[in-house]
Amino acid sequence: MSKQNAIPVIINGAAGKMGREVVKAVAQASDMVLMGALDTSSEHQGKDAGELAGLSEPLEVPITNQLEPMLGYVAGERQMQPGVMIDFTHPSGVYENVRSAIAYGIRPVVGTTGLSPQRLQDLADFAEKASTGCLIIPNFSIGMVLLQQAAVAASQYFDYVEIIELHHNQKADAPSGTAIQTAQLLREMGKTFNPPQVQEEEKIKGARGSEVGEGIRIHSIRLPGLIAHQEVIFGAAGEIYTLRHDTSDRACYMPGVLLAIRKVQQLKSLVYGLEKIL
Amino acid sequence: MSKQNAIPVIINGAAGKMGREVVKAVAQASDMVLMGALDTSSEHQGKDAGELAGLSEPLEVPITNQLEPMLGYVAGERQMQPGVMIDFTHPSGVYENVRSAIAYGIRPVVGTTGLSPQRLQDLADFAEKASTGCLIIPNFSIGMVLLQQAAVAASQYFDYVEIIELHHNQKADAPSGTAIQTAQLLREMGKTFNPPQVQEEEKIKGARGSEVGEGIRIHSIRLPGLIAHQEVIFGAAGEIYTLRHDTSDRACYMPGVLLAIRKVQQLKSLVYGLEKIL
Amino acid sequence: MSKQNAIPVIINGAAGKMGREVVKAVAQASDMVLMGALDTSSEHQGKDAGELAGLSEPLEVPITNQLEPMLGYVAGERQMQPGVMIDFTHPSGVYENVRSAIAYGIRPVVGTTGLSPQRLQDLADFAEKASTGCLIIPNFSIGMVLLQQAAVAASQYFDYVEIIELHHNQKADAPSGTAIQTAQLLREMGKTFNPPQVQEEEKIKGARGSEVGEGIRIHSIRLPGLIAHQEVIFGAAGEIYTLRHDTSDRACYMPGVLLAIRKVQQLKSLVYGLEKIL
Amino acid sequence: MSKQNAIPVIINGAAGKMGREVVKAVAQASDMVLMGALDTSSEHQGKDAGELAGLSEPLEVPITNQLEPMLGYVAGERQMQPGVMIDFTHPSGVYENVRSAIAYGIRPVVGTTGLSPQRLQDLADFAEKASTGCLIIPNFSIGMVLLQQAAVAASQYFDYVEIIELHHNQKADAPSGTAIQTAQLLREMGKTFNPPQVQEEEKIKGARGSEVGEGIRIHSIRLPGLIAHQEVIFGAAGEIYTLRHDTSDRACYMPGVLLAIRKVQQLKSLVYGLEKIL
Repeated sequence: MSKQNAIPVIINGAAGKMGREVVKAVAQASDMVLMGALDTSSEHQGKDAGELAGLSEPLEVPITNQLEPMLGYVAGERQMQPGVMIDFTHPSGVYENVRSAIAYGIRPVVGTTGLSPQRLQDLADFAEKASTGCLIIPNFSIGMVLLQQAAVAASQYFDYVEIIELHHNQKADAPSGTAIQTAQLLREMGKTFNPPQVQEEEKIKGARGSEVGEGIRIHSIRLPGLIAHQEVIFGAAGEIYTLRHDTSDRACYMPGVLLAIRKVQQLKSLVYGLEKIL
Repeated sequence: MSKQNAIPVIINGAAGKMGREVVKAVAQASDMVLMGALDTSSEHQGKDAGELAGLSEPLEVPITNQLEPMLGYVAGERQMQPGVMIDFTHPSGVYENVRSAIAYGIRPVVGTTGLSPQRLQDLADFAEKASTGCLIIPNFSIGMVLLQQAAVAASQYFDYVEIIELHHNQKADAPSGTAIQTAQLLREMGKTFNPPQVQEEEKIKGARGSEVGEGIRIHSIRLPGLIAHQEVIFGAAGEIYTLRHDTSDRACYMPGVLLAIRKVQQLKSLVYGLEKIL
Repeated sequence: MSKQNAIPVIINGAAGKMGREVVKAVAQASDMVLMGALDTSSEHQGKDAGELAGLSEPLEVPITNQLEPMLGYVAGERQMQPGVMIDFTHPSGVYENVRSAIAYGIRPVVGTTGLSPQRLQDLADFAEKASTGCLIIPNFSIGMVLLQQAAVAASQYFDYVEIIELHHNQKADAPSGTAIQTAQLLREMGKTFNPPQVQEEEKIKGARGSEVGEGIRIHSIRLPGLIAHQEVIFGAAGEIYTLRHDTSDRACYMPGVLLAIRKVQQLKSLVYGLEKIL
Repeated sequence: MSKQNAIPVIINGAAGKMGREVVKAVAQASDMVLMGALDTSSEHQGKDAGELAGLSEPLEVPITNQLEPMLGYVAGERQMQPGVMIDFTHPSGVYENVRSAIAYGIRPVVGTTGLSPQRLQDLADFAEKASTGCLIIPNFSIGMVLLQQAAVAASQYFDYVEIIELHHNQKADAPSGTAIQTAQLLREMGKTFNPPQVQEEEKIKGARGSEVGEGIRIHSIRLPGLIAHQEVIFGAAGEIYTLRHDTSDRACYMPGVLLAIRKVQQLKSLVYGLEKIL
């Protein structure tokens, strides 16, 4: 690969679980070059990002905590495509990181969640003025987006639907954010789901699950041995149509991350959600 | 088949949905003879039980509502085995039906639910004194008993378990009686299931389902297109073990009914539950 | 409902299993009127189509075997919308039935399979000349079309896929026609699926299933208790995305049949496949 | 814990994937002490077994390749229970390892597969003469043994059964050894499964899967994103009973390994298979 055509990539949060996975994915992508690896954790400063990620060869990219110099360095690189900064850090720092990147003409791809609607709007305005692409992606799973799109398509023909989500028992909150999001996508169809056929009676409270708005129920299973699974079940007279997504490894997010790195190059403003670039 | 070896069978509730299915099953069993078909519904009096059940040939057994003469007739039959009365009627009449049958030396096999513990005890005493077998079977599904036995076996090695039951949306109560019974069988193991690993938080009430006693959660799905399904999911580090039973037709109860007819012949007292005769 | 706005419907094959289900569905649709019920079986001539279908009230539409007079009668009805003929008959007669209907200006909706490509083309030419809508629908399940469309969408992002289809053990052929069709829809994407990662070895012949073209494998399960089920499983690093359709009753085809009756009114030529009118 | 009551454990193959998992499990078991860690790989000699396994603290047990001295050392330990040697090495060396251990009075627990029936018999004779317990366990998954026992129990009441096994697409052989073993356990019931109801026709070869003996079919799915899964599906009129085991991490074998270490202490001869000690 000639460096002239490559996309230079900086990974912010490179020592975290997702960050390390991204280091590997970028290193293996033929159209990208890892140019910087940032992390605020003191214990990893100076380590090789590739070795930390478990690659057999070092990438000769040391972990550092100096964002601005790195942005300046990549911005000054004239023989490659415009740079991209991947951010898997903390809600506390992501806003400043994104502003800094845009100021240097570096396109942010953000997987960190927790930005307030107000701050999201600020960043959108900032990206707009700078005519710089920026992607905010709360869930990088292409499979989950496909499931949600298929569910929305099915909801035009099915009036009955329930959601089951299953996760390991280290997960404290229920229902999962993704299951709630799936239910909300269906509700936005402006249709009344699950008109009751009988007067239901819960002999034990909670049996019929949680209800998002009026109508769509989510059931949350928590067990060791589970990882992250979601099932959307549509029913009609004489038939059941089920969509299921099972996640067993962070590797499943990498196709979405690489797609985002490639697509953000073509954008001139802030875009929210992986579904917008599929 | 020589009539000498056959088991003479009376079906009480022969015009109901289960009754008709039993008429067919008994008619096709080579070791049984249908001798009487009772039903209190006026519209079916005098009709042929076989034709009503959908058999192509009449059985020449007319529906009647006279129980005592029928019991006397079968009790007087000296060339066959002792008679059996299957009861799929109503909670209001089943107690009297069973007493009458035992009084004539006819063995009852009861699928009708709703007998109070007191009346069950009375019938047990009555059968004991008469040295007459009697089977009370709330669920004739051999598959479900196998599932429950496998769940009890698994509960010795797994500490985490949840139950999902799925039924058509004409079912009003949740959780299903069978799911509650499965959870209670596990609780009787005297073990604490599902010790929490984190402080759970239900962001929407009901997400984590209903809880039988302290520990085993049941989630109830209701959709058209579903029939009757139960799933018991055991989890441990790195593995999931799932038992699932799907019912699509009352035909699935007939092997249990025929087994009960054969086994009640060997009993001298009242026995409760299909699992006792497997 | 005023008869003026209704769609007059003739059902050809009204005494068959699908025909009876269609009789019920049309009778319950507020925008349709059942005007004729045809069947060649001698045993049902003159019977009321509604009673034969299991409705509690007769429809006062007797079963007949005279197609032409019926077509003429419906064609002469000036106060309603143009008539529709549903055909669930036999491969031997369907070609003539469709030609006759079109000749009278009656729109055919055909669920009978087995028309040769040549005869399909003839009918398309015939409908074209007559500017009359005609629908040939080998599978009326909207749920299955949704599954296939979701599978095609997923195939753009997933390179690995296998199909499992499960049917009752009265089904002689394997794989099912619908599973083969699903595999062919994926192959038409022009992509190489399932590039091998290792040299596979079947220790027992057939373990890896059947292969449609080069690449997509179908596995056929046959058991009593199953009805008709299809599962398309996509895999990628760290994730599995599964689409499943379960059929338990012919009722599931009725939304597709009613949709076809409404849509054929707006067509001026022959259209093949339910997916074209969704 | 007082060392007096502990079981001293040697792990042979401690640098392998399973070996490292066993190091962690033994280190965390309150009734065991890791006394030796063997591995023939030159690159790991002298490393701390705990650190290599990913524990945060070193265990102060260095990897060595000297088996005999280690066996002698543990055999000489008089204040603890008799020692146990876990073997997850290679088919080429396991026979000698086991003989050596027994010669020193150390009980072997062997997960290495590939011993010929002849050599297995030799080891059984050797253990018998020495009155020393020895466990040969081809599959340490308690969940899988429970599944197989539940399948055997179900096979008394169900006549129809098929098996689906699903693995990642790095697995070359099909069907999986465990699925074949499950089918053989069912065949040993001495029953004819799956009597055909129709003349089956494979329109594409392989559709109906592989057949173990005459009757039980196994279908093998291979996809990235899958790990290791087995499903045994029983069918009867109107019902389906499914047993499924999903493995996502080697951690799932550790309860079986720890159980074997405890049970081998009570044995006086060679025992084959985890099911014998449940």
